[in-house]
Amino acid sequence: MATVRSLEVYLDLLSQPCRAVHILLTCNRIPHKVQTVALRKGENRTAEFTKLNPMKKVPVMVDNSFTLTESDAILKYLASKYDIPEHWYPWQPERRARVDEYTAWHHTNTRPHAAEVFILEVDQVVLDGALAQLDDTLDKLESMFLRRQPFLCGDDITVADLLAVCELMQPAASGRDVLLKHPQLQRWRSRVQAAVGDSFHQAHAILFTIRDRHRAKL
Amino acid sequence: MATVRSLEVYLDLLSQPCRAVHILLTCNRIPHKVQTVALRKGENRTAEFTKLNPMKKVPVMVDNSFTLTESDAILKYLASKYDIPEHWYPWQPERRARVDEYTAWHHTNTRPHAAEVFILEVDQVVLDGALAQLDDTLDKLESMFLRRQPFLCGDDITVADLLAVCELMQPAASGRDVLLKHPQLQRWRSRVQAAVGDSFHQAHAILFTIRDRHRAKL
Repeated sequence: MATVRSLEVYLDLLSQPCRAVHILLTCNRIPHKVQTVALRKGENRTAEFTKLNPMKKVPVMVDNSFTLTESDAILKYLASKYDIPEHWYPWQPERRARVDEYTAWHHTNTRPHAAEVFILEVDQVVLDGALAQLDDTLDKLESMFLRRQPFLCGDDITVADLLAVCELMQPAASGRDVLLKHPQLQRWRSRVQAAVGDSFHQAHAILFTIRDRHRAKL
Repeated sequence: MATVRSLEVYLDLLSQPCRAVHILLTCNRIPHKVQTVALRKGENRTAEFTKLNPMKKVPVMVDNSFTLTESDAILKYLASKYDIPEHWYPWQPERRARVDEYTAWHHTNTRPHAAEVFILEVDQVVLDGALAQLDDTLDKLESMFLRRQPFLCGDDITVADLLAVCELMQPAASGRDVLLKHPQLQRWRSRVQAAVGDSFHQAHAILFTIRDRHRAKL
């Protein structure tokens, strides 16, 4: 007997990992309900939300009564639990290990280094340092992960590409395309966009609004 | 027809994640060969090693011809590929998700905060700041991950416990037991040690030698 599942995700689409979860859900048409948690309004620090996630972070997923935090874990859980194409998180141990290898690397490379340059006003020296660090990470993404393949972990898109692309889109909010000098990564980003279709724009709509407002000010 | 597998791991047992991999292999009696890469001698920067891992980091695993980096990915691959007790990395999606949740959190919490205090000589102000940050992480480990269960991700030991315990042992090299004020984590560490038996001491033998030498100097 099929039971009615109830899948809820607590997201702020201005947060990079939240967008990755949103894209996986929408492009695979997994029925879900979005609960918006506006970080800028401190909605992640309410008593109610803290009860859900004592770490006060988004995203949070509640699948029936199972509560899960950490985008990396949420994406892999959704890909394993729901009936979506296997390429998102392959079962074959070697292919799966490639995804786990990237995501482990991501936490201490792509994520912190892209996040640092996502600051609308900042000291130029600090910004230059952050951009240099990010460039080093972008070089590694190109020379190692994308060296001989179209996506970060192989021939097809995986949850790793979603985590990465959402981080690298974040500086766009301040009108900065960090991939300008990285044509290989630009082509990869286009492939990711093509693979997920309209869900890319849906997840980034708020970020693009901020970018356009920022550009109009210049 | 069974093929002869050849499993090699490139380790420096003074590196926390390397010890986690070593413990999983030895306590599960997975046949393997250790290639020592002494970081203090720069053996991770040789042309030969860089060819194996352009990131110049340990651990690296080579299973037949499959090369994998990142301890997190290596542990999960070994647990999936080799015939070891399922509790190390459960197949059931919710239980597995708990391990992935911890390991994602680990990369930006336990690992950096424990590593920072592992410095034999350091400015006292910097050390105090690092210890305060580590204390916050230790509080979270107790109040969140160990709140209602004996191990970080449930009733039994998983690869998450190995990653965590090896980080928290690292400051021991400078004679500092960071768990002194955390009896709940001390009991957890004892449970982990009991669960892995002699492989805990094997992996930490070099670290303990340094600790004893350091104590003798005081």
